[in-house]
Amino acid sequence: MSHNTFGHLFRVTTWGESHGAAIGCVVDGCPPLIPLSEADIQPWLDRRRPGQSKFTTQRREPDEVRIMSGVYQDADGTQVTTGTPISLVIENVDQRSKDYSEIARSYRPGHADMTYETKYGIRDPRGGGRSSARETAMRVAAGAIARKVVPGLTVRGALVQVGPHAIDRQRWDWTAVGDNPFFCPDPQAAEKWAEYLDGVRKAGSSTGAVIEVVAEGVPAGLGAPIYAKLDQDIASALMSINAVKGVEIGAGFAAAALSGEDNADEMRMGNDGVRFLSNNAGGILGGISTGQPVVARFAVKPTSSILTPRRTVTRDGEEADISTKGRHDPCVGIRAVPVGEAMLAIVIADHYLRHRAQVGG
Amino acid sequence: MSHNTFGHLFRVTTWGESHGAAIGCVVDGCPPLIPLSEADIQPWLDRRRPGQSKFTTQRREPDEVRIMSGVYQDADGTQVTTGTPISLVIENVDQRSKDYSEIARSYRPGHADMTYETKYGIRDPRGGGRSSARETAMRVAAGAIARKVVPGLTVRGALVQVGPHAIDRQRWDWTAVGDNPFFCPDPQAAEKWAEYLDGVRKAGSSTGAVIEVVAEGVPAGLGAPIYAKLDQDIASALMSINAVKGVEIGAGFAAAALSGEDNADEMRMGNDGVRFLSNNAGGILGGISTGQPVVARFAVKPTSSILTPRRTVTRDGEEADISTKGRHDPCVGIRAVPVGEAMLAIVIADHYLRHRAQVGG
Amino acid sequence: MSHNTFGHLFRVTTWGESHGAAIGCVVDGCPPLIPLSEADIQPWLDRRRPGQSKFTTQRREPDEVRIMSGVYQDADGTQVTTGTPISLVIENVDQRSKDYSEIARSYRPGHADMTYETKYGIRDPRGGGRSSARETAMRVAAGAIARKVVPGLTVRGALVQVGPHAIDRQRWDWTAVGDNPFFCPDPQAAEKWAEYLDGVRKAGSSTGAVIEVVAEGVPAGLGAPIYAKLDQDIASALMSINAVKGVEIGAGFAAAALSGEDNADEMRMGNDGVRFLSNNAGGILGGISTGQPVVARFAVKPTSSILTPRRTVTRDGEEADISTKGRHDPCVGIRAVPVGEAMLAIVIADHYLRHRAQVGG
Amino acid sequence: MSHNTFGHLFRVTTWGESHGAAIGCVVDGCPPLIPLSEADIQPWLDRRRPGQSKFTTQRREPDEVRIMSGVYQDADGTQVTTGTPISLVIENVDQRSKDYSEIARSYRPGHADMTYETKYGIRDPRGGGRSSARETAMRVAAGAIARKVVPGLTVRGALVQVGPHAIDRQRWDWTAVGDNPFFCPDPQAAEKWAEYLDGVRKAGSSTGAVIEVVAEGVPAGLGAPIYAKLDQDIASALMSINAVKGVEIGAGFAAAALSGEDNADEMRMGNDGVRFLSNNAGGILGGISTGQPVVARFAVKPTSSILTPRRTVTRDGEEADISTKGRHDPCVGIRAVPVGEAMLAIVIADHYLRHRAQVGG
Repeated sequence: MSHNTFGHLFRVTTWGESHGAAIGCVVDGCPPLIPLSEADIQPWLDRRRPGQSKFTTQRREPDEVRIMSGVYQDADGTQVTTGTPISLVIENVDQRSKDYSEIARSYRPGHADMTYETKYGIRDPRGGGRSSARETAMRVAAGAIARKVVPGLTVRGALVQVGPHAIDRQRWDWTAVGDNPFFCPDPQAAEKWAEYLDGVRKAGSSTGAVIEVVAEGVPAGLGAPIYAKLDQDIASALMSINAVKGVEIGAGFAAAALSGEDNADEMRMGNDGVRFLSNNAGGILGGISTGQPVVARFAVKPTSSILTPRRTVTRDGEEADISTKGRHDPCVGIRAVPVGEAMLAIVIADHYLRHRAQVGG
Repeated sequence: MSHNTFGHLFRVTTWGESHGAAIGCVVDGCPPLIPLSEADIQPWLDRRRPGQSKFTTQRREPDEVRIMSGVYQDADGTQVTTGTPISLVIENVDQRSKDYSEIARSYRPGHADMTYETKYGIRDPRGGGRSSARETAMRVAAGAIARKVVPGLTVRGALVQVGPHAIDRQRWDWTAVGDNPFFCPDPQAAEKWAEYLDGVRKAGSSTGAVIEVVAEGVPAGLGAPIYAKLDQDIASALMSINAVKGVEIGAGFAAAALSGEDNADEMRMGNDGVRFLSNNAGGILGGISTGQPVVARFAVKPTSSILTPRRTVTRDGEEADISTKGRHDPCVGIRAVPVGEAMLAIVIADHYLRHRAQVGG
Repeated sequence: MSHNTFGHLFRVTTWGESHGAAIGCVVDGCPPLIPLSEADIQPWLDRRRPGQSKFTTQRREPDEVRIMSGVYQDADGTQVTTGTPISLVIENVDQRSKDYSEIARSYRPGHADMTYETKYGIRDPRGGGRSSARETAMRVAAGAIARKVVPGLTVRGALVQVGPHAIDRQRWDWTAVGDNPFFCPDPQAAEKWAEYLDGVRKAGSSTGAVIEVVAEGVPAGLGAPIYAKLDQDIASALMSINAVKGVEIGAGFAAAALSGEDNADEMRMGNDGVRFLSNNAGGILGGISTGQPVVARFAVKPTSSILTPRRTVTRDGEEADISTKGRHDPCVGIRAVPVGEAMLAIVIADHYLRHRAQVGG
Repeated sequence: MSHNTFGHLFRVTTWGESHGAAIGCVVDGCPPLIPLSEADIQPWLDRRRPGQSKFTTQRREPDEVRIMSGVYQDADGTQVTTGTPISLVIENVDQRSKDYSEIARSYRPGHADMTYETKYGIRDPRGGGRSSARETAMRVAAGAIARKVVPGLTVRGALVQVGPHAIDRQRWDWTAVGDNPFFCPDPQAAEKWAEYLDGVRKAGSSTGAVIEVVAEGVPAGLGAPIYAKLDQDIASALMSINAVKGVEIGAGFAAAALSGEDNADEMRMGNDGVRFLSNNAGGILGGISTGQPVVARFAVKPTSSILTPRRTVTRDGEEADISTKGRHDPCVGIRAVPVGEAMLAIVIADHYLRHRAQVGG
């Protein structure tokens, strides 16, 4: 069972509400003797941190992570994991006092207000409570640990579409990703997006996006058919991110229109073993990694918090209109890039341990 | 952990290889006192059964299911579930003797041959062994039970795209789905597909497809954030089906191009409570069902078994060409319709029980 | 969640009722390439089989096991595990037609009649249905596979007390265990028990017993604190066996009366590493195996089916007397020996895989 | 999988080392709308707190618990659970600076020093690190929440044996439990124990104990056969407590010596339904609660930290002698009473939710 836990052998349990005292997670099952300090985690959190450009929410959270347990110095004095649970905590510091009475009363369309209240009979309305994307900070923190579990693993991500504007894949340049506020691998697209998003932001509107995440150095053989397929768990991981409405692997939905001939990833022998001539499979066949890069994409819906009033109802069953003021990302897809990377890393770390259990190594 | 088990409280464990003596599953956690006999399961299996048209594999499997445990007559003499595990078995009868030596030696592109062998050091090559879509018969059988767990639940599915040819959603007619060999809700599209697929089949080629599954009567409140979101588990369920490369909920990937204004599902009061004016959310907000129909789509890649030779390698590291003769579906997406329905039903049944655990009712 | 599944990485799911068509289990997570055929399992089942002496039930079940999936011949033609789920089935052949109306109506003291009916609103009264010890045949079958998972592992068991009569531990002789119908390691005690149990049997009475199980060759390091301690999972495994009322590890309850000085297992260096001078710990410290033999004992209550009438109530709330005729073990503890061995082997195999996941090797 | 998590639907994940910055836990799956503040938890922690008499360790920990998430005020302003994870944290304040170099080097007999180091290749030696009984504070805190989940549930515990000295059950008086430093229900025994333990303490020795825990108000029907039996999960829960070597339910090991006639708990009709004439079953039949009080006992070995030097080895394979100075409980069994109660409450809460899932209510 997993309400707030993700993973089976590399297990991440998160807790906390947007405007509570803190948010945190417990990472259980991490192998011992992996060097780990806050300095290994903080840079990944900094990439996701809000308020770094005008295109993300102006909430100012330093997001300073503390390791509360699970590490100790080894014989050389290096701080390493001990095999016991790693507790991470981030204090919430920028909870502006604000009047939440309207949100507490009316259900914002596209938000979880109505469903949380229906399910639980109560909800913490402050900043979205538990359903806030603030929770994803802990995913990024846990993902930083996951990255260290699998030797040779590299996980990267990029924004490939903003609203109706997709990148040109021919111009893909990983080094460009850090040079713009969008994690965009296509510098020309980034310029266009800046202009487009500026308009969206000024209009108090929002837009959706598509993110691509790629894992390289994934050992062949990860994934446990039939119901723990690697792609299945990636789909689960990415769909669990706030606002995600679709996930695809490799060629994805485009594969539906292909012929068997075009879709087949043919094989030849390379210097290091099997060499695939294409990667429509996204690095996974039969739920098991092939050794090729694992490629996944996910679609994020537009931020539901917009200035334009929308028709809604209150928890008392009255009709109302609501608009959402305050600090919001015009495109939550931007900050979903590091979150998607983290979830992919967590899935791969989990399967790395699972594979080791059944097959050894 | 779940290698071959799906679900947490409504749990389905499947076993069996394509050409073994039988395939089967164990359904654990089913509530007691639900009327259940083979007659409740067989019709759903018959919908998925191969050999019903020239567009599906000509393998002739009667797929007769037997309930081996977990039922007993109640006071009225009706056979009902007892709360103990329900074991279902289907004997394999059409395992043609065949020479599997080439498949055993060469890795078919797009198949799980290479990855199973890499992972396990061995594989059963007969008919794809465990990675065969034959396993999905047990999903359909378990799904038939899941449908009975949630009062008022209806789960339906349809093929909405074959190769590059999508239906016209304006012509959607659920009653048409049973009138063509494609589970197609658009009679005109069905005619076009028949012609198209005939060409594909005669060419020994194959094509992909997109399936839409819809659950009506889903109670509001199902889904357990953060890591057991209803949409997350649907994504996991559908991506676990053989050959699936993408999953989306509600507006799905199209949501990426929408504005916040267009994407918002506005609410008014209806006779029976909240009435949504649209369903871009696909019936799920914040991972929890809204009470609207739950809508998901998934993309199936083209069948990897094709007549045209493809370049590959052998397990001994030699380069080779391979073509796949024999009985195959030119479009595995067709028979994926009942499988997708079943998986959706299983997810909903599981969450129905999970909801009942935490919130009661 | 686990209603009918035991283990996490080496997972055993059992199904079936005493008088249904068959009983079976699915073993999931077994590593690949382990030689396995029915001949590896049948001898262990034969040790548990009823009707082998006058001290066990006269029900005649051949208990012939069939492997339905999960094995295939390797390059040498040896049948080995493939890493996919192993389905085992035993047909029930000796379900005597019998009138179950009294049992169906009245709750037998000490049996699960009342609790199953209270919980589920229904139960299969034939031979105890799901609560019958017949289910333990599948534990023994799965245990036979578990024994092959951990290299060098030996698991043995013995009956050490019958009713008030304990063995003399000074006379412990493992080779004697196979020479009497009680799995008794003390030949003199076995003679005494034969006489004692003959009286019990003729009186239509029953008696309890204590079983000791010992695992040798358990690698040091198995067990995952805090909530997957090796001793914790052994306690869970043994307490799950029908009629068990107590479990202890190493010195067990006797440790309560010891001083810290006497209880400490001191250590010296031996030829192969650390050598313990005693084993009050039963081979486990802090929930993790030390490399010493793992020693556990469990107490089985007397068979609840006795000829002497006992006061009870019916499901309709009437008072009644009931006595249980038919074929029963006067001491179910005897046949619990191979079951206890099997459960211990399953726990160790599971932890062997879990250890491999977190720490490698 | 559960390294540091206990429970399935009421899930407790603990983290922290004895001398780290803090210890904590996350309680997931708790139903919403249960009134909960620190004041509901603190009194239970205070009962377990060290330093309250000369018979427990003199470490001075205020053990002040903070609720970090999962609660919010309801319509009446009462703070209640919201259905989201409840994070609890206790800061460690009394970590005396001390030289741990000898413990870091030598394995203390009876402690987890050797096994942690063997398993993980590293351990935090400060105060026992993760294997310290300090972790049990979080069990007590989580247990305080569990007690509120099941309406009408009462869980109590008592020390029934210290070293070789058992209570006289005829003198059992629950009200006496709070009147002595031993949770002893027999005032005369308490006096004797005070004298006995004084001698043990002054000698720098230690002794074992037996604890009995009793749950009243457990609804009939809890427990999920075959592998989630209520007694099985109680055995697992109690055996997971530090230093526990044995667990028994109802008549326990004594049942082995009983006849079927004497062991049977006969039934008559009472005013409120079935009335049992005895409770050898300990309130559980076939793994399912009967509605009678659930009764379990567990044996705790003597504290391994003693002044008398014991023979041991170092991690470098040298032979050595070691004695353990410092602050220790002469009988850890005393403070195990509230811990055992808490674990019993957690198991029952978990099964209450599980039952509700499968059967409703």
